[in-house]
Amino acid sequence: MTPGIRGISGSEPGWLAGGRAVFVLVMSHTATCRIPGISVAGAGPDAMHLTPPADAEYVALGRCRVMDGIPVTPDGKPTPALMTRAALVAAGIPFVAVSAGSATKPRIPYVETGIEPGGSILDGPAMTAAQFAEAGKRGGELGRALSGMADCIILGESVPGGTTTALAVLRGLGCGARVSSSAPENPEALKNRVVEAALARAPGDPAGMAAAAGDPMMPFVAGMMRGAAGRSGVLLAGGTQMAAVLALASRTGGVPDGVALATTTYVADDPSADFADMARGLGVPVLAADPGMSGSRHAGLRAFSEGFAKEGAGAGGAITAYLARTGRGTGGFLADAEAEYERLTSR
Amino acid sequence: MTPGIRGISGSEPGWLAGGRAVFVLVMSHTATCRIPGISVAGAGPDAMHLTPPADAEYVALGRCRVMDGIPVTPDGKPTPALMTRAALVAAGIPFVAVSAGSATKPRIPYVETGIEPGGSILDGPAMTAAQFAEAGKRGGELGRALSGMADCIILGESVPGGTTTALAVLRGLGCGARVSSSAPENPEALKNRVVEAALARAPGDPAGMAAAAGDPMMPFVAGMMRGAAGRSGVLLAGGTQMAAVLALASRTGGVPDGVALATTTYVADDPSADFADMARGLGVPVLAADPGMSGSRHAGLRAFSEGFAKEGAGAGGAITAYLARTGRGTGGFLADAEAEYERLTSR
Repeated sequence: MTPGIRGISGSEPGWLAGGRAVFVLVMSHTATCRIPGISVAGAGPDAMHLTPPADAEYVALGRCRVMDGIPVTPDGKPTPALMTRAALVAAGIPFVAVSAGSATKPRIPYVETGIEPGGSILDGPAMTAAQFAEAGKRGGELGRALSGMADCIILGESVPGGTTTALAVLRGLGCGARVSSSAPENPEALKNRVVEAALARAPGDPAGMAAAAGDPMMPFVAGMMRGAAGRSGVLLAGGTQMAAVLALASRTGGVPDGVALATTTYVADDPSADFADMARGLGVPVLAADPGMSGSRHAGLRAFSEGFAKEGAGAGGAITAYLARTGRGTGGFLADAEAEYERLTSR
Repeated sequence: MTPGIRGISGSEPGWLAGGRAVFVLVMSHTATCRIPGISVAGAGPDAMHLTPPADAEYVALGRCRVMDGIPVTPDGKPTPALMTRAALVAAGIPFVAVSAGSATKPRIPYVETGIEPGGSILDGPAMTAAQFAEAGKRGGELGRALSGMADCIILGESVPGGTTTALAVLRGLGCGARVSSSAPENPEALKNRVVEAALARAPGDPAGMAAAAGDPMMPFVAGMMRGAAGRSGVLLAGGTQMAAVLALASRTGGVPDGVALATTTYVADDPSADFADMARGLGVPVLAADPGMSGSRHAGLRAFSEGFAKEGAGAGGAITAYLARTGRGTGGFLADAEAEYERLTSR
């Protein structure tokens, strides 16, 4: 195991360190994020839809176009995409932004899939069955195309409100009752209420349940994974949201060989969730990368290690690939993340 | 020189045969295509806007979604994308569709750039100066991103009416007075009239002239070329339209090292145009691939060698890469193209 990477379940796949890698950020939207108090992924409910395109622009260019500055929380903490960008730039891993139902599009070249944003699971189904199937199909097409271009495809996501839809799908599948949040005070009671309302209305079969209570990122990423695996290794970069994708995929067609999941140690060790237990049931290697942010001289970076935005924009998977490919270790990553933080804050 | 490839100017670059390649189809639109009689790239003026997305869908999937069947001319001859698909599939070269102002979007995952379709150069300027600059910038961003993923980037285009805008830009730059057409009877008098009207109104500086009399594909592809060259070899796949891109780029910032142009011998040998003379002035290696279609048992394929749709959808560049990478020669390509033709017509 590469220093800085911990095996939660299984061991580090060989394809992680070799050949060509590409990082894909799947931007999506669930109107669930507009339920007051459910998410802090953005400066406020009216700005939340900007977080996915802003994350994509920032990772691609080092600055945003759909907003000034970069996505921050109401109290000014930076997006975890900061860690994603620091890892990808230092490791020389190319970046591709994909909209799978993002409510706002980034002002950079990005892959459009024609998928619509998801509805709020509090008010009705997130997607129709046809939309759910179509998202999987488009994901398969993109996964197949990308597998001709890279040996290792790292799939991250940016979906405000997405931990709530992940909780709904995991619970609907009978696995994992508690999930992490981007907020240090996990709004668990509110999330439970939303999830219970959504599941009470949802059909019983896994695909129908996930169409009703999930978000468009899930079938799309499951499709990408299936389309790419075999020709490329696929690293799902995320915590509970990617766990939900895997749990869903295993009930709706299966999880192919050559897939692993990687998140940050902040998610893996989150006492308010049961990620590690859940991870052992996913049937794929599950890794956790230590970003080393607790040793930072900047409060804005230490916050990541203090329960704030423990993961997001595929940061854990990007850091895992950085560690496996550069050999620079957690200390090297901290230095690269601090340099990026200082570049941002000195402007 | 690989058998089947002819050097019109300079020699075959080393990067053509080695490493990873990717083929990019840039879909765009100029309302110039709606001038009656100017183009046969589609079943009629009202269907022309469907040709770029249909070409992209067909190359990606082997079938179209925005229309039944595949793009054909009013008399039923198939799109040259047939040759592009046959070459890419047999050579294992991945395919990426990009909209740089396509009027209709394909129903497959594709790269969106936010660029608007171009206006008719008969009625007014094709683009504003700001749109022209923005297209170049977005092209640069995509070129830089793709150069991290491939050693050889093949850039083709699908722009109905695009030979007329190419003629306008070439003439506006003082190079090359006659161009090929997708029709066997080149509607030269009509094109000349449109071009003269456009150039009479256009500013004198190269960028201003091309914004007025060109199409959005041109600044976008020039930007992609500049963004990608250095890290990747760039093969511009096309005849007069890619010659116009090179001529424009050489007057507006320069053409970097590591760029070549490839077309079919049908364009290079077209007696109604002066491609070979013009090619020698472009300052980059210019290659022509022999598709071998004159030996086909199918009239629909022989038509390509008989002056019909001599080039298009990057066919010449795709065949050049096929020849350089597979070693199967013109005879092998004819067999692969015939198999694809038979697959299409047996359905």
